[in-house]
Amino acid sequence: VARVLVVNPNSSVAVTERIEACVAPLQRVGDIRIDVVRLPEGPPGIQCQRDVEQVVQPLLARIEAEKADANVIACFSDPGLYAAREIAHGPVFGIAESAILTALSRGSRFGILAILPNSIPRHLRYAGAMGVLDRMAGDRALGLTVADLADADRTFDRLCSVGATLRDTDGADVLILGCAGMAHLRERLAEHLQIPVVEPTQAAVANACAAVTLGW
Amino acid sequence: VARVLVVNPNSSVAVTERIEACVAPLQRVGDIRIDVVRLPEGPPGIQCQRDVEQVVQPLLARIEAEKADANVIACFSDPGLYAAREIAHGPVFGIAESAILTALSRGSRFGILAILPNSIPRHLRYAGAMGVLDRMAGDRALGLTVADLADADRTFDRLCSVGATLRDTDGADVLILGCAGMAHLRERLAEHLQIPVVEPTQAAVANACAAVTLGW
Amino acid sequence: VARVLVVNPNSSVAVTERIEACVAPLQRVGDIRIDVVRLPEGPPGIQCQRDVEQVVQPLLARIEAEKADANVIACFSDPGLYAAREIAHGPVFGIAESAILTALSRGSRFGILAILPNSIPRHLRYAGAMGVLDRMAGDRALGLTVADLADADRTFDRLCSVGATLRDTDGADVLILGCAGMAHLRERLAEHLQIPVVEPTQAAVANACAAVTLGW
Amino acid sequence: VARVLVVNPNSSVAVTERIEACVAPLQRVGDIRIDVVRLPEGPPGIQCQRDVEQVVQPLLARIEAEKADANVIACFSDPGLYAAREIAHGPVFGIAESAILTALSRGSRFGILAILPNSIPRHLRYAGAMGVLDRMAGDRALGLTVADLADADRTFDRLCSVGATLRDTDGADVLILGCAGMAHLRERLAEHLQIPVVEPTQAAVANACAAVTLGW
Amino acid sequence: VARVLVVNPNSSVAVTERIEACVAPLQRVGDIRIDVVRLPEGPPGIQCQRDVEQVVQPLLARIEAEKADANVIACFSDPGLYAAREIAHGPVFGIAESAILTALSRGSRFGILAILPNSIPRHLRYAGAMGVLDRMAGDRALGLTVADLADADRTFDRLCSVGATLRDTDGADVLILGCAGMAHLRERLAEHLQIPVVEPTQAAVANACAAVTLGW
Amino acid sequence: VARVLVVNPNSSVAVTERIEACVAPLQRVGDIRIDVVRLPEGPPGIQCQRDVEQVVQPLLARIEAEKADANVIACFSDPGLYAAREIAHGPVFGIAESAILTALSRGSRFGILAILPNSIPRHLRYAGAMGVLDRMAGDRALGLTVADLADADRTFDRLCSVGATLRDTDGADVLILGCAGMAHLRERLAEHLQIPVVEPTQAAVANACAAVTLGW
Repeated sequence: VARVLVVNPNSSVAVTERIEACVAPLQRVGDIRIDVVRLPEGPPGIQCQRDVEQVVQPLLARIEAEKADANVIACFSDPGLYAAREIAHGPVFGIAESAILTALSRGSRFGILAILPNSIPRHLRYAGAMGVLDRMAGDRALGLTVADLADADRTFDRLCSVGATLRDTDGADVLILGCAGMAHLRERLAEHLQIPVVEPTQAAVANACAAVTLGW
Repeated sequence: VARVLVVNPNSSVAVTERIEACVAPLQRVGDIRIDVVRLPEGPPGIQCQRDVEQVVQPLLARIEAEKADANVIACFSDPGLYAAREIAHGPVFGIAESAILTALSRGSRFGILAILPNSIPRHLRYAGAMGVLDRMAGDRALGLTVADLADADRTFDRLCSVGATLRDTDGADVLILGCAGMAHLRERLAEHLQIPVVEPTQAAVANACAAVTLGW
Repeated sequence: VARVLVVNPNSSVAVTERIEACVAPLQRVGDIRIDVVRLPEGPPGIQCQRDVEQVVQPLLARIEAEKADANVIACFSDPGLYAAREIAHGPVFGIAESAILTALSRGSRFGILAILPNSIPRHLRYAGAMGVLDRMAGDRALGLTVADLADADRTFDRLCSVGATLRDTDGADVLILGCAGMAHLRERLAEHLQIPVVEPTQAAVANACAAVTLGW
Repeated sequence: VARVLVVNPNSSVAVTERIEACVAPLQRVGDIRIDVVRLPEGPPGIQCQRDVEQVVQPLLARIEAEKADANVIACFSDPGLYAAREIAHGPVFGIAESAILTALSRGSRFGILAILPNSIPRHLRYAGAMGVLDRMAGDRALGLTVADLADADRTFDRLCSVGATLRDTDGADVLILGCAGMAHLRERLAEHLQIPVVEPTQAAVANACAAVTLGW
Repeated sequence: VARVLVVNPNSSVAVTERIEACVAPLQRVGDIRIDVVRLPEGPPGIQCQRDVEQVVQPLLARIEAEKADANVIACFSDPGLYAAREIAHGPVFGIAESAILTALSRGSRFGILAILPNSIPRHLRYAGAMGVLDRMAGDRALGLTVADLADADRTFDRLCSVGATLRDTDGADVLILGCAGMAHLRERLAEHLQIPVVEPTQAAVANACAAVTLGW
Repeated sequence: VARVLVVNPNSSVAVTERIEACVAPLQRVGDIRIDVVRLPEGPPGIQCQRDVEQVVQPLLARIEAEKADANVIACFSDPGLYAAREIAHGPVFGIAESAILTALSRGSRFGILAILPNSIPRHLRYAGAMGVLDRMAGDRALGLTVADLADADRTFDRLCSVGATLRDTDGADVLILGCAGMAHLRERLAEHLQIPVVEPTQAAVANACAAVTLGW
């Protein structure tokens, strides 16, 4: 049995369980096992660049130790992605990178639903580093803390209104959820806005499963 | 059972069988069926822009009629991709688009192994339209006709030497096979050159299976 | 006498006559003849990507058969342009490509007056493929069907209001009419908005005439 | 009779006569007159950025005084182009800008045949300012002084060998002559290299004539 | 004692004195002398492209004659910058170039506070020529003449409101004063808007002093 | 007395002393003190992405604790730069960012002299994130370990030959030393190659001193 390791670099059990639930459909009968783990050493949520940096060491240690056939870093800042690629046994996928690449085949211009405004400059640098800035319609923040995200109704309302602005003002025709823990709202949001919505962890785990299946 | 339709827009039975073989590992037990079909109305091979244009009408008709849950256009020029998206029942994936997006998560700069030199300007336009030109290291032609590709040894020799130039002179650290019919050489080539090699039909079918599985 | 062939790929006699009228000033005494023809096999108007694809085969056949000294494809989606260049006797000009290139010498940032919203993603891909996206200020749709365009007053009102938005909100200082059939409104619109307005068929036919005259 | 003014900003009578000869085919019977003038105050040739700057004042004065219906600045550094547009009676075309825009419809990637190496950074800045850098295959210098250009055979030999490098090493499929005085060699060079070659003054004067004819 | 020459290319004594005041803190004890001079031949203010071109000749003459160890051209259109680099004794810095490069290390996206709307196309061309357009959030004009700038309160009000639009609508997180004569308002503006504000002459003189100190 | 903190994130005393020597000329009499410190917790040299990640935590802790008026991170991978900006008392400068921005005012296209080939993809991502990829001529590795760099003659020979390739093959007209410890070779290299060479720590410390002096 091949194994895909999904590391949630924060310590939240609730977020980890939501991730586990959202990737369950990708679990293949018999030949791939998807293991979702959390980093007990991580912060409860990753809200600034310093939080990002702080999880990198334990994350790398975990990926190195697990020797999985493929690995997914389940935080939208893709912490330690390039270092993980140096040391991992199998390929490594970041959920932001995978989400953006997936969105590029589902629409003409993508919009990112960020949680907090301070992550927008990081997203812009990342899209620049990926060389896909010309396809980004916009990036707008919900203005919610990771804690606020626990309130599903409030989160959904903000997703709808910020998503509508990305679609109508910025011209996005596909949206990306800029956080690992909002998968349960993806389908409702896509229906509400009538454009595709990419859930980043699902996107990355799908890529990891394909890599394992194809032996790449 | 959900169904992924893979249309090879040329009429070659041999190429169609090679495509069928290469996507077999993606066939899930029980819940996805991958149907690979050829276009009897298509030319034996697609070697110029006019060939590309010529297959679009029968290809669109087939995709519209089949009403599959997801669709793959298995020709590296992605003929009719955007029109197919207007009329198809489910999402549509082009193998060139999927291959390029897949390569972007497996290396820093990709190189394309084109079959004939006259397709290079098309690839450049396509990478420009996709907004990913900054990530393209180079595009070099094998200088083989579709007929020449039947000779596996000769094809492999050319793949190795052109691939080495893309890697060493142009700086590619991931390669893309620029044709639907070379999947059987992918693994040997990756081993020979020691960098990842993306097979475009596998990349697109993996994306199509993920879309169906996740209900996107 | 050298000959420039202008093919309107839809079947509309009225549009063909408007094209003929607008290029009349470019007709040189004695040594260039401009022939404007329509495609009887084409649809009455080209409103979606599928319509675009559908006209390519008869268009290529016509261009190949006519053996003109230069050729113009008079539809703003430039259907079959690159295939036509493979098979035509003389050079081939697309009206969208020519309009964009002409606009680049008449202003700092161009805006496109699209007819329908669904053509905007195509325009964005095209400007990306042309490598000129940094010069595009915006692309906004009139929201009129090809049939609506028959009402000149309504069309002009929409051109004025959408054009003003492109100028004042998006920063365009030159506009492009995104359709072959609005030449009769060009001058009034330019006067109303006080910025240059490029009519695409005139732009392309001017380029074709120059190529013939110079023997390029 | 409408009038197109072509100003050669150097003082060379020979270069001015060559420009006059090359635009003669564009002279329309009866309704456009093309006047080619030289700047007696200009240097014998423009070989560095300081030469470029030095001709701007007399050039602007001449264009302002002439009140032509359209204007062409016949030096490949397009000196004073944007200032001329502020003060001229009719539109103003620079030969570098027009040549690059013309090349974009005749090939996939253009190469520039510069005279001296010190103009290459200027060309790169200009293509960047025009937003068309992704379409530039390369820019290589003949390494000839403006004086050397008087020797047609030597110039042609250098054009052939540098042009072949642009085509074969850099991937250019259309070339631009980077100087106003080499029109007499254009056709031979295009035949020798079997790719289109754009002569910049012809390109700009063709644009100027079209603008006048169409009343833009 | 090494010497940095700062040339204000207009003839205004008041502006020259303001420049002198703003660079005073960079004056090192003992080993660098900063000389700020005005061009008596220049116009009272530089408000259009023609004004830009007009100052180039006397500016180059002055820089060539002074033989300073480093040179600063203190006008936001960087007139004659590349020609000055050909002829100057030491390195030459333009205040627009230096301001933009400085801003790139102080924020994610910069906004330019232009004086007049007609300079915006020039700024766009310049950012394109510099290859940094992806980092420009916006460019908006105060709509004040150089004369209006004498009224500090009115100028400050406009800076605050236009700066707030650049920050809140365009997403700029660092601003650039698009003129040499507003240094006295920099600190108040940065405090008012709570984002860094770059004063271009200070940026360029700092670079010039560093170059001299380091012997580059 | 204002204070600029320069942190060498590796533990090497020798490298720290070389950094101290190279920034000595920027030490102002009386009002700025430049403190160069090493991270005892860091590795002896930073040779891969994992080394980069590993130094971030102690580096951030040090910068936060020191409360300097400006800060410089003296490692060419700019580890933790954006996180440091969130927590530092004064502005923070990365030596790679500062070197690239400095190079942009000293030449048309820059080349980077990397130490090891595995850092080239990181440099490409970084230039992409900075939005300056169009100005990068090339990036070539010396193929020396940090230990090899102790041999000044061997290092200089490699710098000369790799630098000549960047200049002559890739078209760079300004070079950047891609490591904090080669300052002592800068001047000789610039003389040997006859193009400017930017030393990154000097570039960043100059920027930090200017920021402190100007109160930005």
